[in-house]
Amino acid sequence: MKKILPQGLEPRDAYRLLLSAIAPRPIAFVSTVNKKGVPNAAPFCFFMGVTPSPPTIAFSVLRRGDQKKDTLRNLESTRDFVVNIVDEALAQAMNIASGSYPPDMSEFDVAGLTPTPSEIVTAPRIAESPVHLECKVRTILELGDLPAAIVVGEILCFHVHEEFVKDGIIDVRKLKPLGRAGENLYARFSDIFEMDMPA
Amino acid sequence: MKKILPQGLEPRDAYRLLLSAIAPRPIAFVSTVNKKGVPNAAPFCFFMGVTPSPPTIAFSVLRRGDQKKDTLRNLESTRDFVVNIVDEALAQAMNIASGSYPPDMSEFDVAGLTPTPSEIVTAPRIAESPVHLECKVRTILELGDLPAAIVVGEILCFHVHEEFVKDGIIDVRKLKPLGRAGENLYARFSDIFEMDMPA
Repeated sequence: MKKILPQGLEPRDAYRLLLSAIAPRPIAFVSTVNKKGVPNAAPFCFFMGVTPSPPTIAFSVLRRGDQKKDTLRNLESTRDFVVNIVDEALAQAMNIASGSYPPDMSEFDVAGLTPTPSEIVTAPRIAESPVHLECKVRTILELGDLPAAIVVGEILCFHVHEEFVKDGIIDVRKLKPLGRAGENLYARFSDIFEMDMPA
Repeated sequence: MKKILPQGLEPRDAYRLLLSAIAPRPIAFVSTVNKKGVPNAAPFCFFMGVTPSPPTIAFSVLRRGDQKKDTLRNLESTRDFVVNIVDEALAQAMNIASGSYPPDMSEFDVAGLTPTPSEIVTAPRIAESPVHLECKVRTILELGDLPAAIVVGEILCFHVHEEFVKDGIIDVRKLKPLGRAGENLYARFSDIFEMDMPA
């Protein structure tokens, strides 16, 4: 096997390698709002479940140099957010929203997304997304000298477009949520097989 | 849209719903060793990147009632582990290893896996896996009353089977790492498209 030591790599190459090793990654298209009421939307693919009860998720927000991303600043002041799930129809707008824009410019405008009010939290939902998870920040874990913070949030409310509800859960065969890998690659959840868990 | 409040759900149904919302999930097939030298292997799909430099990953380990899983106990005592990436050839053994076995019984034996020594850490690698990430625990984040701990680990060494190395990263089109969804569903990374990031 080929051995690769990360300390021998340029930061950009270490990033490319990591992104190819952790795949496929689910995408949290996170919407927040700042104190002035400007809605923000940004995709994160360092995203995972934490525990099912209460339903809790986490995502990692990288720092850009010394700057905190708008999403993290908004979470620190408002403490709530929505995770919008991304299917193929939403892919292009999500990709546009991943760019860097000034704090007073809304990705909803830039990417042609429609904000729709949440039931419980102040952050808007993205109308074009088939699944919305309204979340409250439980804790933001700063990691010493690591240039990232892990946001842990509890899901207070699930919204699922009727056509994707099946037996009380989301029909992923129909929704085909996008998975991310490195090198600008995305895959639909479509080349599927089943394995029963051991007894 | 259909609104689902988690507090109205049985824990099992909340779990099924969460697992259908966060998809596709990458799989960390984590190998550790206990103080007596018994190797352990268990798959985790609450798994994500944290930061590329230094390359750092995290996964969530649920408690089973009051019990800590073997993986967590081993990490607390030895502080190191290997993340083994799962392709289709490794799927069945990974599934067997996901069962519950006593601490002195090795999943390597149960699932027919071959332990192979790591370069840096004490935990063995799984020879049948195409990619191994040797990791050192950086921190284990206990989350108050949540029944889970988030393990944050730094990758000290990447090993990639020669046939899957391409331009210094992993060729995911060839490797087709498995993605997990709810309901015993797995997908190969194969129904792919590309989108360039915005400038």
